[in-house]
Amino acid sequence: MTSATGDGIPFEKAEFDRRLASVKQEMERRGIDTLLISEPSNVYYLTGYEAWSFYVFQMLVVHRDLKDPVWIGRMMDAVSARRMTYLPEDSVRPYTDDYVQSAEREPVDFLVAQLREICPTLDAIGVEMGAYYYSAHIHARLTAALPQTRFVNAELLINWIRIRKSPAEIAIMREAGKISDAIITDAVEAARPDMRECDLAAIVYHRMMAGTPDYGGVYTTSPPFLCTGTRSAEPHAPWSDRKIGNDAPVNLETSGCRRRYHSPISRTIFLGTPPDSYRRLADAVVEGIETALAEVRPGVTCADVERAWQTAIARHGLHKEARLGYTIGIGFPPTWGERTASLRSSDTTVLAPGMAFHMMPGLWLGDVGVTITQSFVVTETGREDLTSYPRQLVVKP
Amino acid sequence: MTSATGDGIPFEKAEFDRRLASVKQEMERRGIDTLLISEPSNVYYLTGYEAWSFYVFQMLVVHRDLKDPVWIGRMMDAVSARRMTYLPEDSVRPYTDDYVQSAEREPVDFLVAQLREICPTLDAIGVEMGAYYYSAHIHARLTAALPQTRFVNAELLINWIRIRKSPAEIAIMREAGKISDAIITDAVEAARPDMRECDLAAIVYHRMMAGTPDYGGVYTTSPPFLCTGTRSAEPHAPWSDRKIGNDAPVNLETSGCRRRYHSPISRTIFLGTPPDSYRRLADAVVEGIETALAEVRPGVTCADVERAWQTAIARHGLHKEARLGYTIGIGFPPTWGERTASLRSSDTTVLAPGMAFHMMPGLWLGDVGVTITQSFVVTETGREDLTSYPRQLVVKP
Repeated sequence: MTSATGDGIPFEKAEFDRRLASVKQEMERRGIDTLLISEPSNVYYLTGYEAWSFYVFQMLVVHRDLKDPVWIGRMMDAVSARRMTYLPEDSVRPYTDDYVQSAEREPVDFLVAQLREICPTLDAIGVEMGAYYYSAHIHARLTAALPQTRFVNAELLINWIRIRKSPAEIAIMREAGKISDAIITDAVEAARPDMRECDLAAIVYHRMMAGTPDYGGVYTTSPPFLCTGTRSAEPHAPWSDRKIGNDAPVNLETSGCRRRYHSPISRTIFLGTPPDSYRRLADAVVEGIETALAEVRPGVTCADVERAWQTAIARHGLHKEARLGYTIGIGFPPTWGERTASLRSSDTTVLAPGMAFHMMPGLWLGDVGVTITQSFVVTETGREDLTSYPRQLVVKP
Repeated sequence: MTSATGDGIPFEKAEFDRRLASVKQEMERRGIDTLLISEPSNVYYLTGYEAWSFYVFQMLVVHRDLKDPVWIGRMMDAVSARRMTYLPEDSVRPYTDDYVQSAEREPVDFLVAQLREICPTLDAIGVEMGAYYYSAHIHARLTAALPQTRFVNAELLINWIRIRKSPAEIAIMREAGKISDAIITDAVEAARPDMRECDLAAIVYHRMMAGTPDYGGVYTTSPPFLCTGTRSAEPHAPWSDRKIGNDAPVNLETSGCRRRYHSPISRTIFLGTPPDSYRRLADAVVEGIETALAEVRPGVTCADVERAWQTAIARHGLHKEARLGYTIGIGFPPTWGERTASLRSSDTTVLAPGMAFHMMPGLWLGDVGVTITQSFVVTETGREDLTSYPRQLVVKP
């Protein structure tokens, strides 16, 4: 249960127990006795630990024969590990500060010493080979220190378990979605041609944190993407100090975040009078997203959903190369995507209740684009939308 | 030169040329013909590329015999690479979207094909082994694909070149520092016991982006750290929705960011009347930071500066285990630290003009702490402070 204050452990212990059991079952299936978890989202999923400490070395250790995971991290963050998680004192194992970005001491050596002490066996260690914070250096030093151990790539092992959300998780994602709606509402209200881009970004961030009267928000994995005018052709550029200007689209992609869960949203706000060609582009996006959303239900594949989108926009003579969407849930920088299923023609993942996606159609015409997106969760019979802002081009004359 | 709009290439071409020449000189010294750069700060340093695209595979290639670096990244971000950098069209080499988080195609294979095409030699490739976005997977796949090539750890090669800032860089850091000062001013003005923590975070973020009337800010590498009451013992926990409460310290660590350059600042705001023991703790921090700052000048070592701090606080019967500070400059998530020199007893780096540090003294007494920090750049004769907010405990009765 999420508490009213956004404080304390966000889930009941029984939910963490179920998650750990699922992970151990998958370890068993793959013949892994020890799993080393570096991806912050996966650490949070299993323990509730969410401090911003992944910029220094940290690892969660799950062993087949140990009841609890073991947190390895920096001394100054151990106090957060104790407060945020259910872990017993013996499962919080910090290293001293002389290991931090230091030439004298190596945190991987600390990890290896801890593994030898706490793990009954070290036959096959699963590691997240492609995870953002599992560097080439860590892997090289770890494998050299444990030459008798077999290393197995367990990247995305937990991410694929995370793909189906529990009712408690969906409740939090609904809260994140309400913040997303409020951000778009504020941005639409505030946007004016003589406003600097950075001042619109300030309004977006303010609402992202202030949230609602009932609950606030926290930082997201990524900045808002706020691209105006011809810059709307750049999906990931930072904003500038320029005035937004008249007769220009403002593409805004952002998300509310609640207890590390995201429900992203994008809308295009057009300041002035859009040309007919641009309106037609927006119509195609709306027709495409409505068609694709109508396809969503348990049993269809990601590819089926994407095909519905391509078929709809093909009627307007359009095609989109980039994928149509991705799974969402817990996020830490640098992305709120879960990196599992994608809505694309080659992905045959079958939709099932509890799976959550950000469907993100966007189309470009020369230098300018339109994006109108929808976060949703798959239900027993179809889908539930996580944001409720109307799916249409927003025009502010 | 930074432009007034925070737009376009932030440095003159001659400055990029000097940077590239320094990197090639160091490659030569180490016998590296090809350098693969994954750290976003280092890519930005050499090219000006700053889009938020490092969550998918990207790499900058510097070859000894090639005039320009080559950008490898995702198709949708190539438009940013063309606009933000001086790179010629042939040096922007994007891969299609079916390489993104996909089981069918592997972006490392795309990189290898590009290396074979563009690099006259591939005898010794330098890679950033411990960089955040150089994963174990990338390294394993790359070394397997190029068995004739020698791989050399070139982590921090560019970071150590970055340690001395040019006048143009220092000018930008002064702008970042002015935003830092404005954030603290706003936070002190707004903080009240009956305010939710998230609403104070909203005010911090608003000023971070709105910046000053002359120029705005952009997103920082890290969220503000805003820890109140007994939570002030946790340096990296997120804020909650709780009311801040009376007779409690608010520890705020944050930074303004201008053109990816940071000048961080921390202050403690005490709401109510601090106990005498707490005031004495704050006095010790102030005496310690003033003593350590007075030590800063070219020729002294990082260890000398830290020793001055420890000597000063030892007079109050105190000792601090964690390092006293670290180098700053360009930052991308997850940290604004440059990961080179640290102000700690074991670091014998000699201070030189242009080096910039965030000195971050903090002391804890049981559950509560005080932090009062200072970003500065070393000058020919001493130091220049990058923020000007008074170095003292802020008390709001």
